[in-house]
Amino acid sequence: MSQINIRFPDQSVKTFEKGTTPLAIAQSISRGLAEKCVVADVNGKQVDLTTPINEDASIKLLTTDTPEGMQVFWHSSAHVMAQAVKRLWPEAKFEDGPPTEAGFFYDIFLPRAISQEDFPKIEAEMEKIAKEKLSYSRKELSRSEAMEFFKSIGQDFKLDIIQNIPDGQTISSYTQGEFTDLCRGPHIPHTGLIKAFKVMSVAGAFYKGDENNIQLQRLRAISFPSKKQLDEYLTMLEEAKRRDHRKLGKELELFLITPAIGGGLPVWLPNGTVLRRTLENFIKEELIKRGYQEVITPHIGNLNLYKTSGHYPYYSDSQFAPIKVEDEEYLLKPMNCPHHHQIYSSKPHSYRDLPIRLAEFGTVYRYEQSGELTGLSRVRGFTQDDAHIYCRHDQLKDELVNAVELTQLVFKTFGMDVTTRLSFRDPQNAEKFAGSPEMWEQAQREIKEVADSMNLIYQIGIGEASFYGPKIDFIVKDALGRKWQLGTVQVDYVMPERFELEYIGADNQKHRPVIIHRAPFGSMERFLSILIEHYAGNFPTWIAPIQVAILPIADGHVAYGEQLKTRFESEKIRSSVDARNEKIGYKIREAEMKKIPYILVIGDKEVADTKVAVRRHGKGDQGAVTLENFIKDIREKIETKSQD
Amino acid sequence: MSQINIRFPDQSVKTFEKGTTPLAIAQSISRGLAEKCVVADVNGKQVDLTTPINEDASIKLLTTDTPEGMQVFWHSSAHVMAQAVKRLWPEAKFEDGPPTEAGFFYDIFLPRAISQEDFPKIEAEMEKIAKEKLSYSRKELSRSEAMEFFKSIGQDFKLDIIQNIPDGQTISSYTQGEFTDLCRGPHIPHTGLIKAFKVMSVAGAFYKGDENNIQLQRLRAISFPSKKQLDEYLTMLEEAKRRDHRKLGKELELFLITPAIGGGLPVWLPNGTVLRRTLENFIKEELIKRGYQEVITPHIGNLNLYKTSGHYPYYSDSQFAPIKVEDEEYLLKPMNCPHHHQIYSSKPHSYRDLPIRLAEFGTVYRYEQSGELTGLSRVRGFTQDDAHIYCRHDQLKDELVNAVELTQLVFKTFGMDVTTRLSFRDPQNAEKFAGSPEMWEQAQREIKEVADSMNLIYQIGIGEASFYGPKIDFIVKDALGRKWQLGTVQVDYVMPERFELEYIGADNQKHRPVIIHRAPFGSMERFLSILIEHYAGNFPTWIAPIQVAILPIADGHVAYGEQLKTRFESEKIRSSVDARNEKIGYKIREAEMKKIPYILVIGDKEVADTKVAVRRHGKGDQGAVTLENFIKDIREKIETKSQD
Repeated sequence: MSQINIRFPDQSVKTFEKGTTPLAIAQSISRGLAEKCVVADVNGKQVDLTTPINEDASIKLLTTDTPEGMQVFWHSSAHVMAQAVKRLWPEAKFEDGPPTEAGFFYDIFLPRAISQEDFPKIEAEMEKIAKEKLSYSRKELSRSEAMEFFKSIGQDFKLDIIQNIPDGQTISSYTQGEFTDLCRGPHIPHTGLIKAFKVMSVAGAFYKGDENNIQLQRLRAISFPSKKQLDEYLTMLEEAKRRDHRKLGKELELFLITPAIGGGLPVWLPNGTVLRRTLENFIKEELIKRGYQEVITPHIGNLNLYKTSGHYPYYSDSQFAPIKVEDEEYLLKPMNCPHHHQIYSSKPHSYRDLPIRLAEFGTVYRYEQSGELTGLSRVRGFTQDDAHIYCRHDQLKDELVNAVELTQLVFKTFGMDVTTRLSFRDPQNAEKFAGSPEMWEQAQREIKEVADSMNLIYQIGIGEASFYGPKIDFIVKDALGRKWQLGTVQVDYVMPERFELEYIGADNQKHRPVIIHRAPFGSMERFLSILIEHYAGNFPTWIAPIQVAILPIADGHVAYGEQLKTRFESEKIRSSVDARNEKIGYKIREAEMKKIPYILVIGDKEVADTKVAVRRHGKGDQGAVTLENFIKDIREKIETKSQD
Repeated sequence: MSQINIRFPDQSVKTFEKGTTPLAIAQSISRGLAEKCVVADVNGKQVDLTTPINEDASIKLLTTDTPEGMQVFWHSSAHVMAQAVKRLWPEAKFEDGPPTEAGFFYDIFLPRAISQEDFPKIEAEMEKIAKEKLSYSRKELSRSEAMEFFKSIGQDFKLDIIQNIPDGQTISSYTQGEFTDLCRGPHIPHTGLIKAFKVMSVAGAFYKGDENNIQLQRLRAISFPSKKQLDEYLTMLEEAKRRDHRKLGKELELFLITPAIGGGLPVWLPNGTVLRRTLENFIKEELIKRGYQEVITPHIGNLNLYKTSGHYPYYSDSQFAPIKVEDEEYLLKPMNCPHHHQIYSSKPHSYRDLPIRLAEFGTVYRYEQSGELTGLSRVRGFTQDDAHIYCRHDQLKDELVNAVELTQLVFKTFGMDVTTRLSFRDPQNAEKFAGSPEMWEQAQREIKEVADSMNLIYQIGIGEASFYGPKIDFIVKDALGRKWQLGTVQVDYVMPERFELEYIGADNQKHRPVIIHRAPFGSMERFLSILIEHYAGNFPTWIAPIQVAILPIADGHVAYGEQLKTRFESEKIRSSVDARNEKIGYKIREAEMKKIPYILVIGDKEVADTKVAVRRHGKGDQGAVTLENFIKDIREKIETKSQD
């Protein structure tokens, strides 16, 4: 028998006999790997572990520790769920059952309505199937064989799918135990790998999304290779629900979204505004240190600006309709860039003037379908902590380093871990990206050199670039371990051309500057949504809207409370006095509910003494300290931007 | 002969013989008054001083010290100018010649083009006519008499005017010397009162403003009762030109208005943004002290908000067209009020929660015709330092006092004198104002009581109210003595009804709050335009965009200059280092042109010493002081908001 060469991700090469399988290869490495492995990537194509390999190949063995492995795991779990449903209600007919970002669903036609009470029964049946350790076996069929088979088992929806498979494409089915499904695969080796199931919900779904069609039942579930992972996931889900920024935003009176003003148009309430201004001032101080200049530009702009930039009409789906004004048209600005470019070109520049760094907390408006709007996460109006750096080419790397450092500082300040993605052009989709391939190569090389010189941990995202240039995107991990894409640093050689931006070089000739677009927070609205959930609303002292709740026990203590407030004001500490005629226990409970970091209860003793009785939110009594020390402590927390 | 009673503005009453004239009355008071008096207001109607009075009457004798007197003075001057033109070019035909805010014009048809070279000739002829002391004599005519007369002297345009005079209206002419004009009057007694003339400009004007008609020449001029007043006016004009905010705004790089972004849409450049933020922070500190809460609301809002408020469609001429979004319509917000009302009504309020004071630097958008746009004075987008105070009725007066005090503080800080106007409803035009007459009476009474209790100097402006309530408007006098309406405090009983705003009273019943709308600056853009002209760009240190220009003499001094800049930054002093390879004289001249308050020239001596050589803008060398004292001096100017 002949030999083939198998190349691994670390570029090592081993020799195997022709016809070997990924499973055999995994076993040759270690038994542990073979047990954890669920699918293989052979020459860039995912296949079952039992698929024979007949020629030299590159291989990646994917376990459930990888996102790709989990997708296959959930896809196989969907088959198990269908099998369980079929065992319980043999008349069930199945449409589509794909994996999702978290779990999987199957759209099922069943005259009987599935209810929450059925979930344990379905889960029990799935567990039974798992314990049977049924292996998934693949079979390839002709279109007529497939039609005949699925007709014979009464699965009408599958017939429709089969008819729509293009000619020349392989049609395959997968069978575990008595259950066969039409499926492209690949699948995990056997059902025994699935150790924990949870059916999450059931909801109506029209066949093919058309409300004129019959209604299916969409059964959503999740599964894991261990019970522990499922428990962790469910805990995380509970915690995420408890931290939901829409719920906390209302409870803490941070923002308001009301149809009276408009969907997706957040209003920053007093508490939210304090928080936002605190974040803005934090950034502004850093910007001054780094030589940025703040500007303010209008919220509409002549449509021609966006024609020049190329955003109109190509991105008009995500823009509001233009407004006619006399013989011109204006657009609610979907981005601040063209406005800043006009500032740049409003006067001539010498090479000595560069870099010019223009910063703006610029509110932009983009159209999103009303069905897509979600709290502060998906909105129609949001404020970018935007800036554009116009620099010479020899300044680009330094400016990129500065921009990345600022972004890192921002996330470190909030105790968030950051990784980066270098978002590059997809050469397979060249038409989606403006500018010459040479320009892209150069910009991508420069970004990579900067990332390497800064020892950034990064992935490369092919096709994730902006249409005008490559970028560094920041992926932030919150307190729940969830990842968010926040912050961006982009290199742009295209807009300087389109807007004919110039400077006079040392050679007395005209040159084009390079532009860096950057926004550490990205959007203030979206950042706040993440911040609320990250801290579960328990904001550290320095950003808490109210830092100290002053609670007089009786009317006679109110005057001293007001005196304290004035003192705190002069120390730039934000406090409130609860002068209501309520019991002190009630006042404390309310201050705790508002998650105010410090609570001072003011009674006879405090009025007479120079000490205050301090209570920390969620931590109870901290004992008495002198007012001066109390102020010093809070001031320090504010100045050091402590996480406390 | 019978007697009549004449009542004077001070309510004193004197008896005169029937048939007396205002001139005779003036002479009976003092010869000085009789000489300065140009026209009289008898029972609310302006008449010539020679008009007989045949019944009891109230009389105001108007001199050229009053705006009304000057209007008549300029109107009479226009007749003199026409007479002069006629003497110079007998073929001249006259259309309309009214007074304006400053001076007067006459639209003249003359085949010969009048040029600047002709101005002295016209002025000389006008002076001659003045010296002739020709009295203006009034004659009333029938329509046919008038037609016949003006036809006989070849004044065709006047025939057209006569034909358009409604039936029943008196037709009159005024004659001085050989010149007769069709005119309603009144006029000053004789041409000798006009002591100084200046022809300002000539420009083409189409007959009746229609470009299909023949072209007239619009000759603009001004006149005064003394040469001194003319000189002062021309000096003020020169000074105003020198201070023009459009010119200085460009030179000092404060703002940019470019058709690329849009007419009337100012962009705040870095220097302007520093200035604006300084003003905003000044106000914000005052707002915190006064218990306001800052909010941020979107720049668009559902059209229904403005239908509820009554601003749409009634004020749609001054609004941008609505934007269609799915099945809704949105308006670029022309005001912040309805957004704030939504915040108020987003939760229930108890009487103990009031007053609630919501403040926002809210950018609003209003449509102005492109021809009307002027620098920062007339724009399409501007930012109000807006706030709405929701209070109980028993809190209204205190809140009004607070709002007026804040406004007074603001203008005092900029060394501007303020007077006030109580802008009331016009009962003759009741349909222009919403709400019941009783409500208006009450609100107006309250405003007046507050103004009296604060000893405000005020006029009452009938018909100057908002449609939803009366207001206190502030009229500010700048360094040139020009008056601007800035700042407003408005009482509103109407919007609480329309938006159904409520609070629960001590009686456990629902009540409506009262709203105060107030904005000390009014619009940040317009205020900046006035501030630039008020200070002629020489801003006091505390608001100057750059406070200290650091000018190193040679390359070797740059490092120390940068060190100083960092030190200043830590002291929150705004400085710049001019590191260019230019002669120090050139650098100083440029810093002076930028009107930077302090200039530090850095040479060997300064690098070696702890002293800095200080130069004040426009005041030259101030000698050497220690760095510490220099910083202390500037910090004090900043903290005290000194005019220096």
